[in-house]
Amino acid sequence: MWNVTQDDIEAMAIGAGILGTGGGGSPYIGRLRMQEILKQGYTVQIMPLEELADDARVCEVGWMGAPTVGVEKLPNGDESVHVVAALEEYIGHKIDAIACSEVGGANSIAPLEAGALTNKPVVDGDAMGRAFPEMQMSTLFINGVGCTPAAMVDEKGNTVIFGHLTDSRTFEKFGRDLCVQMGCVSLLALPVMSGADVKAHSVPRTLTLVKKVGDAVLHARTVKSPFVDAVLDVTGGKEIFAGKLIDVQRRTIAGFARGELVAEGLGSYRGDFLHIAFQNENLVAWRGNRDSRDEVVACVPDLICMLESDTGEPITTEQLRYGLRINILAIPCTDKFRTEKALKVVGPAAFGYPEVTYNPLPKRPGQGIE
Amino acid sequence: MWNVTQDDIEAMAIGAGILGTGGGGSPYIGRLRMQEILKQGYTVQIMPLEELADDARVCEVGWMGAPTVGVEKLPNGDESVHVVAALEEYIGHKIDAIACSEVGGANSIAPLEAGALTNKPVVDGDAMGRAFPEMQMSTLFINGVGCTPAAMVDEKGNTVIFGHLTDSRTFEKFGRDLCVQMGCVSLLALPVMSGADVKAHSVPRTLTLVKKVGDAVLHARTVKSPFVDAVLDVTGGKEIFAGKLIDVQRRTIAGFARGELVAEGLGSYRGDFLHIAFQNENLVAWRGNRDSRDEVVACVPDLICMLESDTGEPITTEQLRYGLRINILAIPCTDKFRTEKALKVVGPAAFGYPEVTYNPLPKRPGQGIE
Repeated sequence: MWNVTQDDIEAMAIGAGILGTGGGGSPYIGRLRMQEILKQGYTVQIMPLEELADDARVCEVGWMGAPTVGVEKLPNGDESVHVVAALEEYIGHKIDAIACSEVGGANSIAPLEAGALTNKPVVDGDAMGRAFPEMQMSTLFINGVGCTPAAMVDEKGNTVIFGHLTDSRTFEKFGRDLCVQMGCVSLLALPVMSGADVKAHSVPRTLTLVKKVGDAVLHARTVKSPFVDAVLDVTGGKEIFAGKLIDVQRRTIAGFARGELVAEGLGSYRGDFLHIAFQNENLVAWRGNRDSRDEVVACVPDLICMLESDTGEPITTEQLRYGLRINILAIPCTDKFRTEKALKVVGPAAFGYPEVTYNPLPKRPGQGIE
Repeated sequence: MWNVTQDDIEAMAIGAGILGTGGGGSPYIGRLRMQEILKQGYTVQIMPLEELADDARVCEVGWMGAPTVGVEKLPNGDESVHVVAALEEYIGHKIDAIACSEVGGANSIAPLEAGALTNKPVVDGDAMGRAFPEMQMSTLFINGVGCTPAAMVDEKGNTVIFGHLTDSRTFEKFGRDLCVQMGCVSLLALPVMSGADVKAHSVPRTLTLVKKVGDAVLHARTVKSPFVDAVLDVTGGKEIFAGKLIDVQRRTIAGFARGELVAEGLGSYRGDFLHIAFQNENLVAWRGNRDSRDEVVACVPDLICMLESDTGEPITTEQLRYGLRINILAIPCTDKFRTEKALKVVGPAAFGYPEVTYNPLPKRPGQGIE
């Protein structure tokens, strides 16, 4: 168990932005809110997975929607209390602990806020070891954990309960449409899981990892050492590009921010171009010319992460703009996404790139996302 | 109280089809199912509104969706048991009686099926005195009755609970999108109302009226007297056209069957043409030439009802086709839709016809829809 501090939140917002691979929503607003909540005297504890009782009742709390909308439509502040209460009322029991649906972006901070405001511990792990745009892309759902019951709320107080859904793809369809009607940003509490399932299928220790990544960036900033090396020391993986954004095509469509970007190389990458396709999160990176994609250098489920070159700050999808100087890292994903069963759900073909072959980035034991 | 018989169902299917003004879904499949249910020994009682206790818990049961889809995607048969149980489980109480959301089409039969299978009486009245395409077009919601909690299910067993929604237009938006995801046909149980509210705001005695309209057609068929006169004797109103369908434009769009039709006059209407615009239900009828709409002859919220000339069978939106011989009746709607407040929700402007002025059809006291 550790108590989350103001400094932790600063670090976690940076680490979550990096592991968010562009998505998960900007952690900026979540960070401000969470720091304010701690200032008001609320506390929240991070609980190691091992300490969770097998029969504990656990639910994830996280945002659904387009990050492009999330920066404009602010929460009213009571969504997380409201959504957990709605789920507890439906099942007729208290929830014992909050889990993290995805460790990227705003969705790393959302469970902390819910934990602080409802006085429940937050489990140190998540269901993706990164951010992903769709519900079914979860280590828990891929391994057979049911996705209902679930509660979904908006900032106006509208509350919907998914009592039973046949599978998580149905949840993605139903929930996404409802999310669009709710104005493209909704807060979910889902599903009601046993402690045993959470322990068996989560990606472990990712909240701690997010903090470590953020601490590494903050430390590098203080001692003026390179951000990229600092991050890669914690996460494993490698830098795949450094340069300047020269083109961004981005549309908010069907509840997602979809698009692609082109970066022009600088320094040792001069003369090269990198293309990245994204759906909230970065999906595939190709090296090539300005107008052609020649060679895949990284793809889902491995992480394609973007850092602003001057500050080491993560660049999320909604912040992309012409002229940004960036470093791009490829980071190995959790082993739980590298099985044949999982790759059907989170591999490049699942995102509409059947022609892209996934070559897992090499991992060093004991480093990065487990 | 009266017990619904096989013969009642035959009559009610016809009457419901006529008062459905084209929508509410075809009562044909509902009739077959309900007659089978009665054959299996289930019974259902129609309860006069006056006998409902003020503190009784009542919910409507009805289908949402496009009638064009409803004739192809059949129910699996346990939706009504499932949807009522989901709502009861959510509120933690038994529902005492079932109400009818709209007295038109399949939605006149749906409450009977729910009542029979869950052993609850069905209240003699409804919230429209006709069928209408959208949720907020309800005498109850217009008069301030809350539209939640509500349950919505599909034939696969997916179950969604609307715990709280700010208003019935939000329900229409959220529910309609979810309905499209459920394959354009869903069954709803909603909202949980007090007996006092149901008595105060329902259109009374409409299930009895539906049966009377059907009985009138069946009697006319037996004695070979004109169907039109038989119906108008019960409902009031007048014939506005008789002729042949010569053009039907119909699309299933955003969960509705939308379109327009043109009929060419026969008999005393020879040389005339009638245009009707519909959204599941018939909305506005214009007299004119083949290619022009010259004069509004009837419009919402009054009923524009179509009968097949040879049999007196109601023609619903999904059955419209070139060559059908039809009689078209205009029937005065409930007084509850003739207030200024109600006309904002159910008048022609609410359907996108701000240029059409609603001139209420004259009513005779004690006749037709109250």
